[in-house]
Amino acid sequence: MKIGIIGTGNVAWHMAAIIEETDNTLTSFYSRNSKEGEEFAKYFGCQFSTDISKSIENDLILIAVPDKVISDISNEIKGFKGLVCHTAGSVGIDILSDFNRYGVLYPLQTLTKFNALDPSEIPFFIESNNKEDGTLLADIIQKAGANSRFVDSEQRLILHVAAVFASNFTNHLYAVAQKLLDDNGIQLEAIMPLISQTSKKIKSLEPSKAQTGPAIRQDTDTMEKHLKVLESFPNFQELYQKLSNSIIKKAEG
Amino acid sequence: MKIGIIGTGNVAWHMAAIIEETDNTLTSFYSRNSKEGEEFAKYFGCQFSTDISKSIENDLILIAVPDKVISDISNEIKGFKGLVCHTAGSVGIDILSDFNRYGVLYPLQTLTKFNALDPSEIPFFIESNNKEDGTLLADIIQKAGANSRFVDSEQRLILHVAAVFASNFTNHLYAVAQKLLDDNGIQLEAIMPLISQTSKKIKSLEPSKAQTGPAIRQDTDTMEKHLKVLESFPNFQELYQKLSNSIIKKAEG
Repeated sequence: MKIGIIGTGNVAWHMAAIIEETDNTLTSFYSRNSKEGEEFAKYFGCQFSTDISKSIENDLILIAVPDKVISDISNEIKGFKGLVCHTAGSVGIDILSDFNRYGVLYPLQTLTKFNALDPSEIPFFIESNNKEDGTLLADIIQKAGANSRFVDSEQRLILHVAAVFASNFTNHLYAVAQKLLDDNGIQLEAIMPLISQTSKKIKSLEPSKAQTGPAIRQDTDTMEKHLKVLESFPNFQELYQKLSNSIIKKAEG
Repeated sequence: MKIGIIGTGNVAWHMAAIIEETDNTLTSFYSRNSKEGEEFAKYFGCQFSTDISKSIENDLILIAVPDKVISDISNEIKGFKGLVCHTAGSVGIDILSDFNRYGVLYPLQTLTKFNALDPSEIPFFIESNNKEDGTLLADIIQKAGANSRFVDSEQRLILHVAAVFASNFTNHLYAVAQKLLDDNGIQLEAIMPLISQTSKKIKSLEPSKAQTGPAIRQDTDTMEKHLKVLESFPNFQELYQKLSNSIIKKAEG
C-alpha cells in the first residue's frame, strides 16, 4: 500500500517511523514547510512535495498537522477515493466525513522528531467509519510492533485530557523543580531517582494509594515552610497551594 | 557500631534496610506505636521498645518521625553522648543543637515500608555539626551501596520543595488522570507508556525544552474542549487552567 503523510511535525515523523516497520511504502511527505519536509524525506528516503493535493496519489493519507488546520487540509484533498486518517486526540472523526473512507490513528505518546522510540512504547487508538478500514489500520500498527485499541471520538478526547495531566503537566512540574534547583546551584540529576521511582511505583500501587508528601499528611508546618521558600516565585506558590488543596480535597473524598 | 531507629514509618523502614547492607548493627526500633514496631523488628530481626529513652544505649540514633515530633523526641533522649541524626527534608540541623554530635541523613526518594528498593536508587543528603561525623555518615551510606552528598539545611529545604513538585504533585496528576479514565471505563494502563516516557525523556532533554501539549502551543481550541470535558470536575478544571497558564507564562519568559 502507498502511504503519504501530510505534515512535518513530531507526529508526522513518528508515523513515518511506524510505516517503515511495515511492508507498506511511505511515498512522500506533503507540507508547505519545505525545510523540515526535505529533512524528513532525506531521513526516511522518500519524496517531499509542497503540493498537498498530490497526496491523493496514495492509497492511505495520514494527516498529522495542528488540529485547527485539519479541516483546511481535507479541503485540499477533496475527492480522494482512498482511506484518509487524522492523528489528533481531541478532534472527532466526523471532521473527515466528506470522504468515503476515513478514520483516526492516534498515537498516545510524547513524541519528538528524530528521537526514535521502540514501536512497542507507542499505543495507538483507532477509529474508522467502516469495520474493514479499522482492521486494515490495526494490521499496520501490529506489523510495526505497536499495540492498538479501538475507541470512539469521545473516549479519545478523554484519553487526551488524561494525557495532558499525566504528561504535559507533569513535565511542567519537572521544569518548576529544575528552576528551583538551578537557582540554588543544584543539578536536576539530584532528583532523577525520585522522578523515575514516582513513575514506576504506580505500576504496582495505584496513584491515589501511592500519594505521599506534606499535603496528604496535612502537615501544615511543612507546607508553610515551602510556601515561604516560594515567595520569590508567586506563580509556583499558587501552583503549590492549588495542588496541595486538590490532594487534601481528594483525600477527604 | 550500634544503631537505633526511632520511628516506625516509611523512612524508618528504609533506614533499617540501608543499615542492614552495612557491617553495623541495627539494635532496635523505638516507638510508641507497638504494632508497627513489632512488625518491623520481626522483619529486620532486631529488638523493639516502646521506651524511647532506651535508645541512648546505641552509638548512633536515627530519628525518623513526623517533623513536628522531632523536638519532643530529642527531649526524651537528652544527654545522649553519641551521634544523633534526623532524616527530614524541611527541618534544619539546629533542632538537634542541644546534643554534642548531631546531623541529618535525608533520603530523597518516595519510600513505602516493606517495599524494598535497591540502595543505589536512594540518594542521601548529609549534614553534620562536625566534619568527622559527616565522613562517618557518608561511609555508612557508601557501604550500603547508595550515593550521598553534603548539603546545608537551606539547600535541603529547596530539594524537598523541588521533590514535592516533581513527585508528590506529579503523583497527584497521575491520580487525576486515573479518575478521568476510570469514569469512562478506560484502564490507567492505557497511558502507562506515556507516563514512563515522560519521566525518561528528561534524562536527555531538559524539562523546559521537552514541554509538549496544547498549552505550550497556545492551542486555545483544544484547551477549551478539554475544559468542557472537565465541567463535572470543577477542581480538575481549575488545576487544568492554572497549570496551562503557568506553562504559557514560563514559555513567554
